[in-house]
This record gives sequence, C-alpha cells and structure tokens, in this order.
Amino acid sequence: MSARITIALDVMGGDQAPRMVLKGAEKSLKRYPQVNFLLFGDETKIMPLLGKMPRLTARAQVHHTNDLVTNEAKPSVALRTGRRSSMRLAIDAVADGRADGIVSAGNTGALMAMAKFALKMLPGIDRPAIASFFPTQRGESVMLDLGANIDCDADNLVQFALMGDAFARSVLGLTQPTVGILNVGSEDLKGHEAVRAAATQLRAEHSPVKFHGFIEGNDIAAGTVDVIVTDGFTGNVALKTAEGTARLFSDFLRAAFKHSLLARIGYLFAADALKKMRERMDPRRYNGAMLLGLNGIAVKSHGGADALGFANAIGVAVDMKLNGFVDQIRDEIARLHAIQMPPPQTAAL
Amino acid sequence: MSARITIALDVMGGDQAPRMVLKGAEKSLKRYPQVNFLLFGDETKIMPLLGKMPRLTARAQVHHTNDLVTNEAKPSVALRTGRRSSMRLAIDAVADGRADGIVSAGNTGALMAMAKFALKMLPGIDRPAIASFFPTQRGESVMLDLGANIDCDADNLVQFALMGDAFARSVLGLTQPTVGILNVGSEDLKGHEAVRAAATQLRAEHSPVKFHGFIEGNDIAAGTVDVIVTDGFTGNVALKTAEGTARLFSDFLRAAFKHSLLARIGYLFAADALKKMRERMDPRRYNGAMLLGLNGIAVKSHGGADALGFANAIGVAVDMKLNGFVDQIRDEIARLHAIQMPPPQTAAL
Repeated sequence: MSARITIALDVMGGDQAPRMVLKGAEKSLKRYPQVNFLLFGDETKIMPLLGKMPRLTARAQVHHTNDLVTNEAKPSVALRTGRRSSMRLAIDAVADGRADGIVSAGNTGALMAMAKFALKMLPGIDRPAIASFFPTQRGESVMLDLGANIDCDADNLVQFALMGDAFARSVLGLTQPTVGILNVGSEDLKGHEAVRAAATQLRAEHSPVKFHGFIEGNDIAAGTVDVIVTDGFTGNVALKTAEGTARLFSDFLRAAFKHSLLARIGYLFAADALKKMRERMDPRRYNGAMLLGLNGIAVKSHGGADALGFANAIGVAVDMKLNGFVDQIRDEIARLHAIQMPPPQTAAL
Repeated sequence: MSARITIALDVMGGDQAPRMVLKGAEKSLKRYPQVNFLLFGDETKIMPLLGKMPRLTARAQVHHTNDLVTNEAKPSVALRTGRRSSMRLAIDAVADGRADGIVSAGNTGALMAMAKFALKMLPGIDRPAIASFFPTQRGESVMLDLGANIDCDADNLVQFALMGDAFARSVLGLTQPTVGILNVGSEDLKGHEAVRAAATQLRAEHSPVKFHGFIEGNDIAAGTVDVIVTDGFTGNVALKTAEGTARLFSDFLRAAFKHSLLARIGYLFAADALKKMRERMDPRRYNGAMLLGLNGIAVKSHGGADALGFANAIGVAVDMKLNGFVDQIRDEIARLHAIQMPPPQTAAL
C-alpha cells in the first residue's frame, strides 16, 4: 500500500462551492485512493452534502469556520482580516505539516498573499509565480507566470526561468528542458527592456538553463519550448485567449455537425474519434495552476471549475507531492544558484 | 461602372515575395475588378512572373527599384537608408496621391516608421496602432494595438479606444460600438497603472465612447465587446496565441478523422460542413492588419501569408477606401475631441 497523502481543501472557494469542491474530492479518490482530506469551511453547508458521499466521508476531517475570503476581497485585506477564513486555515494546515498540500478555487490574489505569508518563499525566490500545463503539438509545456505578478522586471523573469526549469526536470522528468521568453518577435532587438535584459542574462555563457531565446504567441501551442516564461499580465491574457479560442473552435465544430443531415450522419461515424479529441483539448484536464517558489504545495483551481476540473486540480497537488516537488525544486534552485554566472558587469571585465 | 481605386504594393515584402504578392494581386482582381496596381520592386524578378498573369498585367504599372527593406532591418535604419526601397516608394505613392492605399507583407517596424514619416498622423493621435478583425462567437470584433507600440501609457490606450470606436462606426457600420480594455480580471482594481488610468478616463461622465470596462482574454473570442483595446505587446501575444491555438485544434481534428476507419467514413459525410467551418476560422480570411491613426491607408499583411491571404489584405485596403475611412476617422476623432471631458484634476474641482 502506498504512503498516505493529506490534502487540505478550501471548501468555500469557487463559483459553485462548496458542492463542486466536495464532489471533486470524491471524484479524485477514484484515481488517488491514498489521499485523505482536511476540509475547511462552514460545516452547516458541508455536512448535508457529505451525507451523500460515503467514500469521501470515510476519508475526510471537517474543520468548521464561518469565515471565508470573497472574490472581491483585496489580497492585503484578506491577509489582515482573514485569519480564520477557510482559505487561510487550509494553508496553515500545510504550514504546520498537517497536510501535504492545499487546493483552493477561491480568490487568486488572496491565495498568493496568504500562501506567501504562511508557507514562506524558497531561498533565492522573491515572489511566487503561477504555472500551468498547456497542451501542445508535441505534448505538454509549462508556462509561468499566469497572473501572480503583473509588473515584472528582468530578475523576476530570470527567477521564473529557473523555477520553470526545475519544475520541468522534477515533475515532467525532462533531463534538459528548453526555456523560451514570450515576446513579440524572435529577434534579439524585439520587445521591452525587461525581456531583453532577462534574455541577456539567460544567454550568458554560464547560464544554468538551456535558453532557446525569444518565442512568439503561436509557439505556445506549437510546443517550441518546454518552459514558457512571461510576466503575469501577458501570461494571464495568453492563457485565457487560448481557452477562448478553443471554445470558439468547439462551438463552430458543433455547429458544423448540425449543419446538414449528411453532417449529422458523419458525426455518428466519427463520434468516438471526436470524443478523444475533445478530451485531449478539454480545459478541465489542465485545471490546477501551481504556485511555484513557495516552501509548500499550493494549487489554484479555476474559480468556475466543475467537479471534474477540481478533481484534476487535486491531482496536480498529489502529483507534486508524489514527485517530491518542493525538495526537488529547492535542490535544483540551490544547484542553479551555485553555477550561476557572476553579474554581467563583472563578467565583462 | 464603379470608381477606380489604385493600390500601391511593396512587391518585395514577405517570405514568399515577389511571387506571392503578384499572385495575391491577380486573385484580388476577381473580387475587386475596379482596382489598379502600382507595383514597386525589382523588375527583373517581377517581369517574368507578370508574363504569366495577363489580367494583372493589364492593370499594373511596374516601378523598378533594386532596394528593399529586409526583415532584420531596424526601423530607424530603414527610415534613414531605405528611401529608394520598394516599401518606401509604395508609401510615397499614397503620400503623393498617386495611390489610395499601400499594402506590404514586409518588416512591420519599418512600415510603421516610414508610414508615420511619409503619411503623417491624424490630428490628436500620437502614434499609429495596428488593428485587425477577429472572428468571434457573435461575428467580428476589432482589436488594437497588435504590436506597433510595445510600451503604452494610459493616453495611448485612450487614443486606441477612440480610433477603434471610429473604425467600428465607419468600417463595421456599428452605431454604438462597445469598447473594452484587455486586463487580467474584470474588477476595477485589477491590472497595472496604465490600464486602470485609461479605464478611469473612459468611464468618466462625458466619455466619448461606450466603455464596457475591463475584459479578459477569453472575452476576445466570445465577442463580449466590439473593440478590444490593449498595448502592442499584449495584443501581439494574444493574436498569435489565438492563431496557434486554432492551428492546434485543426491538427487535432485532422488526426481525429484519421484515427479509425469509422472516423474516415464520418469525414466523407461531414466534409462539406467541415469545409465551411474551416473557412470560417481560416486565418487567411483575417489577414491584413490596418495601420490606424495615419493620414492615409496602409495595410500590413502577415509576412508568411500566401496569395489568398495577401489578396485578403488587399481587400482590406480597398474596403477602407470604399468606406472613406480616412475622412470618416478624421471627422470622428474631431467629434470625439470636441466632446471630450476636461482633464481629471479639473473635473474633480
């Protein structure tokens, strides 16, 4: 029997919480039977729902609290006043060592602020970054930051590159992941100061990562690199633009198959293959963004996720634990820092 | 018979120039028989190709030049040293009134710099912006800037909003287009300083545009607003991310139909409907980005466009002329400036 893993859940976070969170946890037990849950939230709402989920009930401990973080709350206010919120108590369970990871579909900014405060950052990292997998022509890539850091300087981008590299090695199991910085063109002169300065650092002779150079928006889905580095503003827009485009395509496809009797017949023949394709592109499969750079495992689910999507976010946290992610990334960052180049002005002498 | 329209072409710009440019011009004559072309480029390369295009030959005047702008050229260098380049001579033809518009698939930065210098800006606009149509769930939206202005302040974004509004009224024929600013969330507090300050200006009581507020990446394809305003860095990444995602989806779809014998049979039945869908999403249909804010019509084709894509870019320039775009946008901007609110500090008194 494999080792037990404990996941703390912010049961009150998400558009369809608490039902969606509990159903997601119930679902995830099919794939990960070794998981126990700590459930933080309003027990008057949780208990009636749990009553219908015997499998989850057997694996869950409910920790009651009336307080929760709203989607509208400013991160600084949530941090100051939300000490008894379901989100914060779930994070504290990881900080105390009672849980191996925390999953929330609530307010992203509050989650970042609380996780940074309670879990602390890994040495050498200033700010957490949000990372997620993307389906590509060549498999999967990881992209960061997806919205945690709106304004980024070159040093932030270089840290994202290091974290992304470490993540790709430890969780994706790649021996030499390629790293690209998202830009408006691939030539050295393109883009603003921050991307150009970050590229100069990553291109240096003793650079700790295999730097591909600049990539463009279309390279994300093409799978040109394993790790896509960008600031949180651009990354968030790119992620959601890709989701919107995929939805548009799906809707057009559905309309096409309703277009004529022949098309409807064609659909019947091709239904199995099309179902496989839909599954491959299903955004719920890629739900669960990792907060990287923290001294602990924290995963953010899409606020609008359904139970299947939330179950996948739980799966991301479990996989990170199974891969010993936090230790690996800490070692990797220490290794990278040890071989890191001297600052540019010294190197130029 | 409708009035003649003259389009100047930079025959040497684009990955597959000059053949692609000439074939595109030949193709566009089917849809726009009223067009004449001024062709700028190397006649030793143009003439042999024109020999096989009798329809275009009858409608084209070749203006020889040996010089061209490479894709690698810096805009400032191209502006200084490229006075005899095919791109510059084509722009000059519009500045002189010999042509109604110019189309190029060459170096975007050089095209912007040369067009700004030779055509001048409309009153009240600081810098040109690149705009393009996007297919959406609700039809078509226009988005700007797509890469002309990497660093944008609030005033730039407000000008993009005015230009986009004017464009949607004059070319799309909308009586009250909605305008949204691309951001990482829809709440007022989201995003960086420039988007928040621009939103404050556009939300003001006497705002000249119908401001929807902030939108997110997924709202682009959803068609939430008619005009999407963003800085050139984010807009360029969003555009190319959408293109890449659409290509990924197409490739997965193609793979799905090859997946089994049943799926292949299904494809035969649904082929017609699928062809219609492909046409609806075909990026070549949306090729031809407009340079807005100039005192003249200039259209940038994708560098990797084929003849069909380039023909569409020519179509965009012709449509802008047919709609009297430059006069309309000038009038519209004057109207908007006339009703524009006083600066915020005065308004607050």
